[in-house]
Amino acid sequence: MSVREKSISVPGFVFSGLSMTGAGKRNLGVVYSLVKDTVGAAVFTQNDVVAAPVIVSRKNLELSPVKRAVLINSGDANAFTGKPGIDDAQRCVKEIAGVLKLDPAHCFVGSTGVIGSRLNMKLILKGIPKLPDTAAAANSNDFIEAIMTTDTRKKLASTVFTLSGKKVTIAAVAKGAGMIMPDMATMLSVILTDAAISQEMLKTALTETIEDTLNCISVDGDTSTNDSAFILANGKAGNEKITKKNSLYQAFKKQLHKILESIAKQIVNDGEGVTKFITLDIKNAATREKAKKVAVSIANSPLVKTAFFGENFNWGRILMAIGKARTGMDCQLITVSINGYVVAKKGAPVADPKTADVIAKTLKKRNIDVKIDFAQGKAGVTVWTCDFSLDYVKINANYIS
Amino acid sequence: MSVREKSISVPGFVFSGLSMTGAGKRNLGVVYSLVKDTVGAAVFTQNDVVAAPVIVSRKNLELSPVKRAVLINSGDANAFTGKPGIDDAQRCVKEIAGVLKLDPAHCFVGSTGVIGSRLNMKLILKGIPKLPDTAAAANSNDFIEAIMTTDTRKKLASTVFTLSGKKVTIAAVAKGAGMIMPDMATMLSVILTDAAISQEMLKTALTETIEDTLNCISVDGDTSTNDSAFILANGKAGNEKITKKNSLYQAFKKQLHKILESIAKQIVNDGEGVTKFITLDIKNAATREKAKKVAVSIANSPLVKTAFFGENFNWGRILMAIGKARTGMDCQLITVSINGYVVAKKGAPVADPKTADVIAKTLKKRNIDVKIDFAQGKAGVTVWTCDFSLDYVKINANYIS
Repeated sequence: MSVREKSISVPGFVFSGLSMTGAGKRNLGVVYSLVKDTVGAAVFTQNDVVAAPVIVSRKNLELSPVKRAVLINSGDANAFTGKPGIDDAQRCVKEIAGVLKLDPAHCFVGSTGVIGSRLNMKLILKGIPKLPDTAAAANSNDFIEAIMTTDTRKKLASTVFTLSGKKVTIAAVAKGAGMIMPDMATMLSVILTDAAISQEMLKTALTETIEDTLNCISVDGDTSTNDSAFILANGKAGNEKITKKNSLYQAFKKQLHKILESIAKQIVNDGEGVTKFITLDIKNAATREKAKKVAVSIANSPLVKTAFFGENFNWGRILMAIGKARTGMDCQLITVSINGYVVAKKGAPVADPKTADVIAKTLKKRNIDVKIDFAQGKAGVTVWTCDFSLDYVKINANYIS
Repeated sequence: MSVREKSISVPGFVFSGLSMTGAGKRNLGVVYSLVKDTVGAAVFTQNDVVAAPVIVSRKNLELSPVKRAVLINSGDANAFTGKPGIDDAQRCVKEIAGVLKLDPAHCFVGSTGVIGSRLNMKLILKGIPKLPDTAAAANSNDFIEAIMTTDTRKKLASTVFTLSGKKVTIAAVAKGAGMIMPDMATMLSVILTDAAISQEMLKTALTETIEDTLNCISVDGDTSTNDSAFILANGKAGNEKITKKNSLYQAFKKQLHKILESIAKQIVNDGEGVTKFITLDIKNAATREKAKKVAVSIANSPLVKTAFFGENFNWGRILMAIGKARTGMDCQLITVSINGYVVAKKGAPVADPKTADVIAKTLKKRNIDVKIDFAQGKAGVTVWTCDFSLDYVKINANYIS
């Protein structure tokens, strides 16, 4: 089954999204669970500058394991907005809780848009009461549109599988195109499932799965102040409840991994101005931490990224980026392959002008595979990234985000 | 006296530069001292992948404090070229030493160009013997041209001052436009002086001065495998020899600082595709290390750089970049000023749409000043950087370097 879908639907959840001004792109959305005992977990940005909605959501997470709703606006990030910004985020939570007849502590809130820009509370407070009017299980696309900014494509993934004889769904939606960096919680994403799982196990599954999926992508190395990944589980599937790390947990985690890897790749594929989708496979490194440091250094190198944009066979820049990570690993042992061809081995180029021409031709494809074998350990990581194009500069020179 | 000159001249030093093919841009150059007891020091790249010429120059530095010549080629970086590459660099040193009748251990060697590309030894070995034919005190520009790659301007600075009653000159030339990152030794630069100074004090002065000059610039956050800053002092000025950290040393260091700050700024001003010259002033941070981490994070943020290119008043991205440095400093205390206007104070925007318009207009200037006051310590740093333009991408998508 493909994990990419045209819309998502998870038993017991309804979606809504609207334009606060009544015209143009939707920019306020909510997803909520109709099931009382829905539990939630979340992972947030590691940026020192933390947006108000992150502060409020994090506090609510401490207050209660129950989470019924995620309210998100796009346009204003409500980050670096001081105490008034936190008051605004709390007011939003209070309003959506009131409208949905929920405990405010049972709500998550997220914002995306211009940093330093306060929420337009007048419009938001007018919009929130209207959200339930159009809330429906089939309206996921309205919600997804509401959370998008420079995204050109909707990001969503869904899977249905069997758990202790019951049909279980996991689905996720996300926004994110720039300010995407692997070391953090990454972008805004909302993951929904009807699985029966304890909040503790839900949290563990999210944390463990994110490390190799949403935390393994980079568009530009910049990290949002608002990154949040929310997960809600409402138990409606009626499976044997997951309460420990047993085979049911592993089966659930495997499906969650599939969904989040799909979302991660979709975000990179829709990175601002992307023309190349690059998979960096680091193998046989001393430690996973060093492997990831190297992968991130390559993924964020403007010279590597522009070379791929130019379809240039300029593998020396990859070596530069490996070395600037300063992991202390022995670079004389490295083997580098691009699109299946070995270009450097044991500290020296594999000199063959004919192969160089062949490899150069493969760089015209959208998908690029770079494999780096450090030959000095057993650790590895896969990181997905993209090129740096003229359009990236154009988008970010003109867009206020 | 202005430190920027049209050519440099330092008593006792001669320059030469030629095109190895006999046509087109010069790509092989040497500068050497006619004085026997010339001492030298150097600082090299911190990249894990170290180019062959760096390995050879570093070894020669260990062998002898005397340094008479610096040989540099452009086109091939001779980096990640294995044992054969080291043999090539050593052969170059042997040849130039033979031609100039010097001890090979008294020579530095540098390369700049494509990483992974071996030197064209046939052409180099034909070129080296011709270098002395055109060597002259007045030929600094031939040498500078020989070491340039994507540089569009020559980088040179010179100062004359009095030391213990004697006229002393310090001059420097450099190449560097991309792959420039502050945390390292940075680009290729050659500093020449006729001051009388011990090798130990020369080394100390270079190391101390580089930290606040060549190590405080960033064009793209990428770090060359070949970065080297060489300094030679031939004592011809006849000043009282500097052998300890006395007032003469301080006077010398002050002038060296002036020269290297000029070179540092010239490199940023000639960064690939630069349209903005940005000065980042970090003040009252907890430690200099944290201040620099923040400055580098801002300097290397693609979103900050593209915003300045677009002349967008998008100061929220600066906050994002401050936070992603993850120094743990309290971001709620920060005051941010752009071109003299306070835009954010104590964790919140300074909301004044009129001022925003005024500030936006100042962004059309080439020179941009960003001041960040952390209000939680006494440490600071100044870092110079540039914007990220369409031309940066064009240059690096098409150029093999």
